[in-house]
Amino acid sequence: MKSRFRHVALIGKYQAQGMRGVLEDIAQFICRQGAEVSVEHDTAMNTGLTGHPMLDVDGVGRECDLAVVVGGDGTMLHIAREVARHGVPLVGINQGRLGFITDIPVGEVREVLGPVMAGDFEEERRSMLEGQVLRDGRVIFEAFALNDVVVNRGATAGMVELRIEVAGDFMANIRCDGLIVASPTGSTAYALSAGGPILHPDIAGWVLVPIAPHTLSNRPIVLPDDSEVAVEIVGGRDTSVNFDMQSLASLIHGDVVRVRRSAHRVRFLHPRGWSYYATLRKKLHWNEGLGG
Amino acid sequence: MKSRFRHVALIGKYQAQGMRGVLEDIAQFICRQGAEVSVEHDTAMNTGLTGHPMLDVDGVGRECDLAVVVGGDGTMLHIAREVARHGVPLVGINQGRLGFITDIPVGEVREVLGPVMAGDFEEERRSMLEGQVLRDGRVIFEAFALNDVVVNRGATAGMVELRIEVAGDFMANIRCDGLIVASPTGSTAYALSAGGPILHPDIAGWVLVPIAPHTLSNRPIVLPDDSEVAVEIVGGRDTSVNFDMQSLASLIHGDVVRVRRSAHRVRFLHPRGWSYYATLRKKLHWNEGLGG
Amino acid sequence: MKSRFRHVALIGKYQAQGMRGVLEDIAQFICRQGAEVSVEHDTAMNTGLTGHPMLDVDGVGRECDLAVVVGGDGTMLHIAREVARHGVPLVGINQGRLGFITDIPVGEVREVLGPVMAGDFEEERRSMLEGQVLRDGRVIFEAFALNDVVVNRGATAGMVELRIEVAGDFMANIRCDGLIVASPTGSTAYALSAGGPILHPDIAGWVLVPIAPHTLSNRPIVLPDDSEVAVEIVGGRDTSVNFDMQSLASLIHGDVVRVRRSAHRVRFLHPRGWSYYATLRKKLHWNEGLGG
Amino acid sequence: MKSRFRHVALIGKYQAQGMRGVLEDIAQFICRQGAEVSVEHDTAMNTGLTGHPMLDVDGVGRECDLAVVVGGDGTMLHIAREVARHGVPLVGINQGRLGFITDIPVGEVREVLGPVMAGDFEEERRSMLEGQVLRDGRVIFEAFALNDVVVNRGATAGMVELRIEVAGDFMANIRCDGLIVASPTGSTAYALSAGGPILHPDIAGWVLVPIAPHTLSNRPIVLPDDSEVAVEIVGGRDTSVNFDMQSLASLIHGDVVRVRRSAHRVRFLHPRGWSYYATLRKKLHWNEGLGG
Repeated sequence: MKSRFRHVALIGKYQAQGMRGVLEDIAQFICRQGAEVSVEHDTAMNTGLTGHPMLDVDGVGRECDLAVVVGGDGTMLHIAREVARHGVPLVGINQGRLGFITDIPVGEVREVLGPVMAGDFEEERRSMLEGQVLRDGRVIFEAFALNDVVVNRGATAGMVELRIEVAGDFMANIRCDGLIVASPTGSTAYALSAGGPILHPDIAGWVLVPIAPHTLSNRPIVLPDDSEVAVEIVGGRDTSVNFDMQSLASLIHGDVVRVRRSAHRVRFLHPRGWSYYATLRKKLHWNEGLGG
Repeated sequence: MKSRFRHVALIGKYQAQGMRGVLEDIAQFICRQGAEVSVEHDTAMNTGLTGHPMLDVDGVGRECDLAVVVGGDGTMLHIAREVARHGVPLVGINQGRLGFITDIPVGEVREVLGPVMAGDFEEERRSMLEGQVLRDGRVIFEAFALNDVVVNRGATAGMVELRIEVAGDFMANIRCDGLIVASPTGSTAYALSAGGPILHPDIAGWVLVPIAPHTLSNRPIVLPDDSEVAVEIVGGRDTSVNFDMQSLASLIHGDVVRVRRSAHRVRFLHPRGWSYYATLRKKLHWNEGLGG
Repeated sequence: MKSRFRHVALIGKYQAQGMRGVLEDIAQFICRQGAEVSVEHDTAMNTGLTGHPMLDVDGVGRECDLAVVVGGDGTMLHIAREVARHGVPLVGINQGRLGFITDIPVGEVREVLGPVMAGDFEEERRSMLEGQVLRDGRVIFEAFALNDVVVNRGATAGMVELRIEVAGDFMANIRCDGLIVASPTGSTAYALSAGGPILHPDIAGWVLVPIAPHTLSNRPIVLPDDSEVAVEIVGGRDTSVNFDMQSLASLIHGDVVRVRRSAHRVRFLHPRGWSYYATLRKKLHWNEGLGG
Repeated sequence: MKSRFRHVALIGKYQAQGMRGVLEDIAQFICRQGAEVSVEHDTAMNTGLTGHPMLDVDGVGRECDLAVVVGGDGTMLHIAREVARHGVPLVGINQGRLGFITDIPVGEVREVLGPVMAGDFEEERRSMLEGQVLRDGRVIFEAFALNDVVVNRGATAGMVELRIEVAGDFMANIRCDGLIVASPTGSTAYALSAGGPILHPDIAGWVLVPIAPHTLSNRPIVLPDDSEVAVEIVGGRDTSVNFDMQSLASLIHGDVVRVRRSAHRVRFLHPRGWSYYATLRKKLHWNEGLGG
């Protein structure tokens, strides 16, 4: 089959065992489909897979028209955030353990990646969060998040008190361990553990999930993603905020965490016949009875 | 102030005490704004408020350009379903106890209803569910629901087993006491009691909430409202289905409950300055600390 | 090994496929340990396993000093309730699917049942509920339950309203779909699906779990099992009550469901090394990550 | 009325406004009942209420036969822990806002405290947790807790992984934000926010509540309080542990938090007619409908 993609980036979770061999096989497979391969710089340096051209993540965004990511959902999230503004689509390959967004098992790369590269795929777009921290009205931090933005109490502090505004309207003051603002992609991650619902990727919304709220009726709420959510720190000590993996500690009273929808979306390519619900069923053990 | 509306229907929860006097006052107030008043037929007959023209609910839909509903959310839901296809907007007046959608206290009718009739209002549109029950491929029941469609096990039966498809894709087989498909309006009603999230009215989605699911990971899921949800009865006895208040009992294995978004939306008029979040805060006691 | 038990009853879930052969093998195995075997009457008649003496369930209670139950937790519950007042200990054998209280896989009967019969077992005692329904102060129904007593709304009715007293003290009026009073044994069954906690079998308590309560703070509550719980039906239609599997429908306002601890306990024998927590881990998939 | 108590300690939440006057009134009232009054040292120094003998908390435990605590549940918890081993009973007086364990409103002190001091009270005993942190087998920290012992992840760290043993049996490995071991008293505090059940004070058990567990079936579990619970830190960074208010940060992998029932119980005296359920109803707004 002939690749519809001209220049493919290869990125791997380089800490994982045996990654070099796995990546080398995939690189050769991609070449045989008639595409050029570049290996992401850190992946290449850490695995010693240096026989191919290298590109840093930014270069991947600028120069490639497909990114193949080998690892788990964490690796995928990281790369997806970085290349989203360039519109590069991603394919996720998992090593043994199915992920929510890394859906091709490494053992099936040959059968599955070929058709995808030849253009036989289903494309899915995921919304992304864009967050800022404001202090005295000035932006002191900003970052993207594909999963969630989380405001946290200090570990040995009591609760935080948060004042939430949505699109400029006062929503509520809540006292809790923290607050998660999750995208549909993030709704099956931390937000689910904290009691949130699952949001289908096509829902144009965020879910706000308070963690251990003092008031029992402070339930998860799903809001339109074209509304800006502003979370002001009004009580508590040692509060911090997380954007996917990136943290900012030492928030102070009056700081505002502002979350809105990014103008960029992440593009995932799935093999033909891929099913969102099949992934849910497998990941959540829906077929296994009590406890499943 | 001059009414922007020409012909106003007045509907009351006629079982409530003192309703006749309340309705008479409101009828006179509406007349003084320069609008014609008709009283809904059952309301008139049951309260003895017979000095005004009467219209049945269908006539209200056809002839009026505003409906004023006095009672609780239940009365409002009932009328809203009936007049939705005619596009008649509704104003809800509560007697003492704030409702989610009946937001004007009866004591403030004069101050608040005048400006609303004069055109100073905020309009909000709520999506509606359209449900059908199919047996052997034929429709044996259909109804609208503004809150929810609920599939229930028989009272003395064990669990039901339901096979759920979304937009033709298999989602899951679930064993449970029942399943709620709720609109944003319904998300603060029964679905909330059963563990569902709150959906902002602008969310273009439904929430599926399984009631007491056997599999603990069968969590509430929010789905786009342009997808049809089909629920097939595959196990259990004496299963029934509810569309807001209307029930169909004696479902049998193979029956399918099909839910889609209605082409019609309900139009609610709120006084200027109305806030969805303020209603949530009051109804859910968000300001009252633990237990609140 | 020599059996410590003189006369062993054999009971099977006779609807299950291949049960006759399984029971015959076990019967012979028990004989070889030097014990007399009787087969429970219904089991014998329905499987055609008629070469052994037969006893009805009451006879099992009176004459046997051990009951071996082959099937699932449902079969075990049924027999356990019946023989509890005679103090006959039970051993549960499952067919393929581990149960909470049927912990010996049928394929390991030889290795495991021998030592148990020889006296090498761990004995565990489970408390049982004794329920009554009172109408106008007279008992109109009574039954035992090993799992739970459940008050239910009618399938097409709205909520029930229940007035709960504990040891004669008013606890609460709750509006809900129903109320579960579960023993520790029942805490991993229906009560868990409805949001209740797990109670270790040694906890001298019941858990009250409201199903879909209107008031979000009506949370599960664990009460001492030496207190009588009285649930009065004060609102709702077509209310019913379930004691494990046995139902009484058509409760009316004023009826009281009274639950107290039975004087009898169920005795389960487990193979040496049996672990309550290991069963939880397996049944609840605690080792399987998200969704687990 | 004549006091049954000889020497009464008076303790106040000295940061609260107007505390000096409140305490002075109560001190005089106590004297008039014929009892000696001592004011707790910090209370006296911080409010300037220095006209009475002073005692430090330890002295209160050794010399007084009743402690009257004015403030909220937090103040009460603090004093209760300190005097428990001396067996001094406590009476809690709240300022305006009913507490779970401070049940006499300050405005009713005269009417209510007199009879209590004269011996007309209901006594209730609450169990207490005794916690230790072990590193390399040596105890590096120990403390009492009346509410709960909480193991927490670091604020900007990911999840912790905890290995739980109960009475020496392996229960589970759980990945979560943290784990709460709560007494019945603590079951209506933080544990309730995190999804735990309410435990009646007479339940001889703890509830383990995982906070945001990765595995959805890691539900709250109620364990007998005569079993020691051992929680080993096996994963995560910056883990800390809290005993009511007292924290120990910087736990490392291999550290074990050991929790057992204290030999001491706290004694609370309530006015005759006091009801545990009435307090629940008020604190949890059980009579206020949806959200309540």
